Amino acid sequence: MVQEVTAAYIGIGDELLSGSTRDTNFFCLARTLKELGIRLARGAVIPDDLDAIRETLDLYRKRYTYVFISGGLGPTHDDITVLGVARALGVRVVRNPVLESKLREYFGDRLEASSLKMAEVPEGAVLHFCDQLLIPVLSVENIYLFPGIPELFEKKLESIRERFRSAPFYTAEILCDRFESEIVDMLLDALKRFPSIKIGSYPQWKGEGYQVKIVVEGREQEAVERAGAHLRSTLGGG
Amino acid sequence: MVQEVTAAYIGIGDELLSGSTRDTNFFCLARTLKELGIRLARGAVIPDDLDAIRETLDLYRKRYTYVFISGGLGPTHDDITVLGVARALGVRVVRNPVLESKLREYFGDRLEASSLKMAEVPEGAVLHFCDQLLIPVLSVENIYLFPGIPELFEKKLESIRERFRSAPFYTAEILCDRFESEIVDMLLDALKRFPSIKIGSYPQWKGEGYQVKIVVEGREQEAVERAGAHLRSTLGGG
Repeated sequence: MVQEVTAAYIGIGDELLSGSTRDTNFFCLARTLKELGIRLARGAVIPDDLDAIRETLDLYRKRYTYVFISGGLGPTHDDITVLGVARALGVRVVRNPVLESKLREYFGDRLEASSLKMAEVPEGAVLHFCDQLLIPVLSVENIYLFPGIPELFEKKLESIRERFRSAPFYTAEILCDRFESEIVDMLLDALKRFPSIKIGSYPQWKGEGYQVKIVVEGREQEAVERAGAHLRSTLGGG
Repeated sequence: MVQEVTAAYIGIGDELLSGSTRDTNFFCLARTLKELGIRLARGAVIPDDLDAIRETLDLYRKRYTYVFISGGLGPTHDDITVLGVARALGVRVVRNPVLESKLREYFGDRLEASSLKMAEVPEGAVLHFCDQLLIPVLSVENIYLFPGIPELFEKKLESIRERFRSAPFYTAEILCDRFESEIVDMLLDALKRFPSIKIGSYPQWKGEGYQVKIVVEGREQEAVERAGAHLRSTLGGG
């Protein structure tokens, strides 16, 4: 039995809730964790608010192996993620000397006092430097802090992803032209035959056409392959 | 002082967490609620799991004016939203006679036993029929149930949106070519001058270019317009 590695996502930002910005980081993380064999168990989008950060971390940080946070790391008044995480953990916010010297070196004379906010971290934070990027990913306990800007989120996640790799998931997908209500019993039968797998059933409209996507998933490669072959033949799918 | 109307979103579905499907309903809801003057306060993505549904509803349903749920309303084994909501509210799942006769009329001889699952509702549910769609939106207490399929989610929300309309939000957006660290004090100054507004600051990369989008928001139209004009002149933005 493989020890299940789990994760939760917290997107922080008023702009996500107001419909001003579409959160793409959740989907990016979900796909990456799937490839790494980690089960993403929860996602949350919350405002730039200290109580919201504390409440959400209280719920997630003890329960899941990792918590991935996106957003709220900039220098302006609405960037409060570092403070929120520190408060939730009961630690201080401190200025990290390595980050401070990086910022001083990079900005030189152009350094604004407010830029030094980017050197502030929850006490005990670990820095994970990424290729070609000035600012590292911060982690504290099992919480990883990423920037909200999608290009940076993706680059930074790509750069440190291998440290999270776990035992793989296996999946099989079957497309089927019947209505979901016609295949209910066949899916239940397959779940009985292959108890180690999960089956999801997802209706889709493609233009005028209707299809159901069946997704078989499990940690045991052989069971997934056999269940996929079984369903392909019973459902008459492609 | 306007009474604040608030909402939370719960996307239910293993496929959203596994990266197999991108959740677009959250963004659709966020934009719609913004237009309607409702503050979306939380979003969550959770698995097809009764305990997860109960936990999330326990957190949201008393605190926010409305809870919008998307997904898990189909006939297959992984569609458990109706049961999950009923359990969270401590009510039974019952077969609704209006829905049952609609389904019998529509499917006729082709009605599968499993299709009748689509007539099951949490006891006390209200049906909100939508133009040209067989299945209505269900609500029970302040919880509204929408299908996960994006085309249907959008149609149904569009169809009943006006019942939620509240006092409007006003916004002003300013694009600015400076770094965020250079404008921190100007934003703080504007917040002092116009205490009824909120200001968000969002860096964006567009190809090679860098810009900061400043979003001013509030319930008082004049304050938002004056703050927008003030920031446009101090930031030198477009």
